[in-house]
Amino acid sequence: MKNNPSTPILTSGQALQHWQGHRNLSRKVIEAFPENKLFTYSIGGMRPFFELAMEMIHIAAPGAEGMATRNWKPFGELDTEGLNSSPETKEELLELWDWTTNQINHWWEQIPEGRFEESETIFGQYEGQIWDHLLYFIDNEVHHRGQGYVYLRSLGIEPPYFWER
Amino acid sequence: MKNNPSTPILTSGQALQHWQGHRNLSRKVIEAFPENKLFTYSIGGMRPFFELAMEMIHIAAPGAEGMATRNWKPFGELDTEGLNSSPETKEELLELWDWTTNQINHWWEQIPEGRFEESETIFGQYEGQIWDHLLYFIDNEVHHRGQGYVYLRSLGIEPPYFWER
Repeated sequence: MKNNPSTPILTSGQALQHWQGHRNLSRKVIEAFPENKLFTYSIGGMRPFFELAMEMIHIAAPGAEGMATRNWKPFGELDTEGLNSSPETKEELLELWDWTTNQINHWWEQIPEGRFEESETIFGQYEGQIWDHLLYFIDNEVHHRGQGYVYLRSLGIEPPYFWER
Repeated sequence: MKNNPSTPILTSGQALQHWQGHRNLSRKVIEAFPENKLFTYSIGGMRPFFELAMEMIHIAAPGAEGMATRNWKPFGELDTEGLNSSPETKEELLELWDWTTNQINHWWEQIPEGRFEESETIFGQYEGQIWDHLLYFIDNEVHHRGQGYVYLRSLGIEPPYFWER
């Protein structure tokens, strides 16, 4: 029997596990950077890995909230309730990272049934269905984390294995 | 109502479109490289982008065939029926890329119903469910393509927009 384009191939639970697995690997990449290189090192005029990691956080936590609540904060806003949302050390970045992990798990449970098929403009400018936005969040992280691998390699540091989640 | 982990969020047709969209962007990255840099330029002892693109091809075409037929060739084997499977120019690489695009579309239609839930060891060593293998194929491409972006930036070349698929 031929493949049916409408056959479902991924569940919500699998998607969450997949996303958090990627985020766990990205956390290891943050950890692999020497503190000062994390904030300053770059290639070809690109952003240091700290800024790339902050972009991942700014997408992930408000992204999970928006998927659940349909309320999209302006990009860059985080409601961290006391936790430093502008980290100045690797330790603080990792704390914000772990806060984000909890935010995703918290909001994910509250995503309404049928939500992934809804079309919505998110962060004030990106239009599409929620499933597509979710894949974009993950892809964007994989994309920038891959760039972090080059930074690490050029610093003579071996990055974590890509399949370690 | 709370999110149900077993809610399907992605269909086979959406997954194919998503994959081919990524592949279209990767093709633009290949095109953006000057011919000689494509084959020789690297950072931190990493592989030139030609080799990363060949890895994407070696995963994608036999991967699609394996998903459809359960027959996994040894990694690196391509049955291109006359087309040069070891490109020596950018043009030849792009031809092999486009052949791969057609291979994916060809095999995708023949993926049997229920196949994405099956567990299987692929390329002789990687165990998991087919949906997870598929996401890995895509993630691996996004990961290495992100590295190509750093190569391009360090060569002073502006890469294509990440959201251009």
